[in-house]
Amino acid sequence: MFPIIGVIGGSTCEEEICKIAYRVGELIAKNNCILASGGLGGVMLHASKGAKDAGGLTIGILPYGKEEANPYIDIAIPTYYGMARNHLLVRSADVLIAIDGFVGTLSEISFALNEGKTVIALNSWKLEKEKITKGNYIEVSSPDEAVELALREIR
Amino acid sequence: MFPIIGVIGGSTCEEEICKIAYRVGELIAKNNCILASGGLGGVMLHASKGAKDAGGLTIGILPYGKEEANPYIDIAIPTYYGMARNHLLVRSADVLIAIDGFVGTLSEISFALNEGKTVIALNSWKLEKEKITKGNYIEVSSPDEAVELALREIR
Amino acid sequence: MFPIIGVIGGSTCEEEICKIAYRVGELIAKNNCILASGGLGGVMLHASKGAKDAGGLTIGILPYGKEEANPYIDIAIPTYYGMARNHLLVRSADVLIAIDGFVGTLSEISFALNEGKTVIALNSWKLEKEKITKGNYIEVSSPDEAVELALREIR
Amino acid sequence: MFPIIGVIGGSTCEEEICKIAYRVGELIAKNNCILASGGLGGVMLHASKGAKDAGGLTIGILPYGKEEANPYIDIAIPTYYGMARNHLLVRSADVLIAIDGFVGTLSEISFALNEGKTVIALNSWKLEKEKITKGNYIEVSSPDEAVELALREIR
Repeated sequence: MFPIIGVIGGSTCEEEICKIAYRVGELIAKNNCILASGGLGGVMLHASKGAKDAGGLTIGILPYGKEEANPYIDIAIPTYYGMARNHLLVRSADVLIAIDGFVGTLSEISFALNEGKTVIALNSWKLEKEKITKGNYIEVSSPDEAVELALREIR
Repeated sequence: MFPIIGVIGGSTCEEEICKIAYRVGELIAKNNCILASGGLGGVMLHASKGAKDAGGLTIGILPYGKEEANPYIDIAIPTYYGMARNHLLVRSADVLIAIDGFVGTLSEISFALNEGKTVIALNSWKLEKEKITKGNYIEVSSPDEAVELALREIR
Repeated sequence: MFPIIGVIGGSTCEEEICKIAYRVGELIAKNNCILASGGLGGVMLHASKGAKDAGGLTIGILPYGKEEANPYIDIAIPTYYGMARNHLLVRSADVLIAIDGFVGTLSEISFALNEGKTVIALNSWKLEKEKITKGNYIEVSSPDEAVELALREIR
Repeated sequence: MFPIIGVIGGSTCEEEICKIAYRVGELIAKNNCILASGGLGGVMLHASKGAKDAGGLTIGILPYGKEEANPYIDIAIPTYYGMARNHLLVRSADVLIAIDGFVGTLSEISFALNEGKTVIALNSWKLEKEKITKGNYIEVSSPDEAVELALREIR
């Protein structure tokens, strides 16, 4: 069974964030992990592209049908649950990396914490630490640090 | 069809928060709305008790089976989805009132905003306003104000 | 907590089937049970109308939004899961009555059996009995018999 | 994006059925498709083993956690939805092959038909043809015929 690292973030992103997402995807693939995302644009697309360019395998847990998937998704799961697919993405991943993002990303971060998972955050939401009574929310400052921590979580 | 107000918050709460939840439930019932919650303890229980004492009707969208429901739930929906039931509770409600709460509550707040809904917050999470690009997050300071705003949202 | 009887069947139905559905709904309400259905037309509508005319309470677990609900639904749960809402309807009900119906109804019957529930069938699918290793599938010939058996299951 | 063929069937099966499932899995892999199943024993295990022995890739959409997966699952999706994961498996697959099976399998067959999909049946449920108003239910008598038809459906 392959370890799965979930990458969550906005469906649109600025250039700098796109590069960070790409590098995260690249490192996930180079470390022989599968990258799971929501399968759409922005952070999801650039992370998936990074993984594909490095020879990795990508999963997209989609809100609706397969036609939505970005071009770098190998395995498309068309849930037709709308944004409730966020829950499923979280459950699919052994650990998550949050990059930037808006309320959709926050719903994934918080659901992951509530399920007791570790979320590694890069330029993402600031949360009131004392209210996080389940899971781990770790803020890092580089893609390399994020993936290194994610790998440590899996092994 | 009856309007449904969702009440979200922690499954345990301090006495002051219990009172706030009770008052919110009471006002929901007095205004002829149905109260939907996650059906468990803490904020969910006290809000449901408030609604029942005022002659209202309560729904509990439960993580697992009916035996989990607090004693003030009239209609129990046993989802067996675990915490993924949070999504369903959010979708069931026309508007939501968040009281206190931890990461589970945050997952409901953020999922509701992501679905474009209004969440009225009482002693709950502080969020980075500029990142809320969908839905409405309104902080208020009393149960009466919370329910009044919720009613305005429905009508 | 109120007992909930699920009524499943096609979203269109012939006049005789409509009458059967109406009578089933009427009897559910007269016996102080809540009627849950998929909230749309056909069997779902006529059963809900029967329940409302007898002073009962009705729940509609909808595929998409509240605007889909037939006019006899008191509590609308807009799941936005599409036909995957069938699972949730099954889980909401303590016992189910299947009336007529096509493959959607069969998905509800079989999922209910798989969850160990009792399904009482009126003019519905013929199933290979020896393959039903979980749940109970009981064929009856009148609405009165169906509701009587359903009530026995609850009590 | 890789085409995905879903294989559904009982979690226990007799030796002859195990061989049929193994052959179906082998042919799916040899034809460069991904095999998706419920990830447990019986038909799911033997089909996945067949696919792995032929160098293919397998997905298991699990009722609960990763520890449930049979040893031939590459990508485990732990849904924690219980048997409601059946819906997700159906949606993940471009076409389904049903082998033998009980009420759980029937819930997958009927849900797939209701979503308009093609289900190819090998020694599985007999259904009343005139009630199948959506999807395609095609009964075949050999694994080779089943996979050939499934491939035709995809291309």
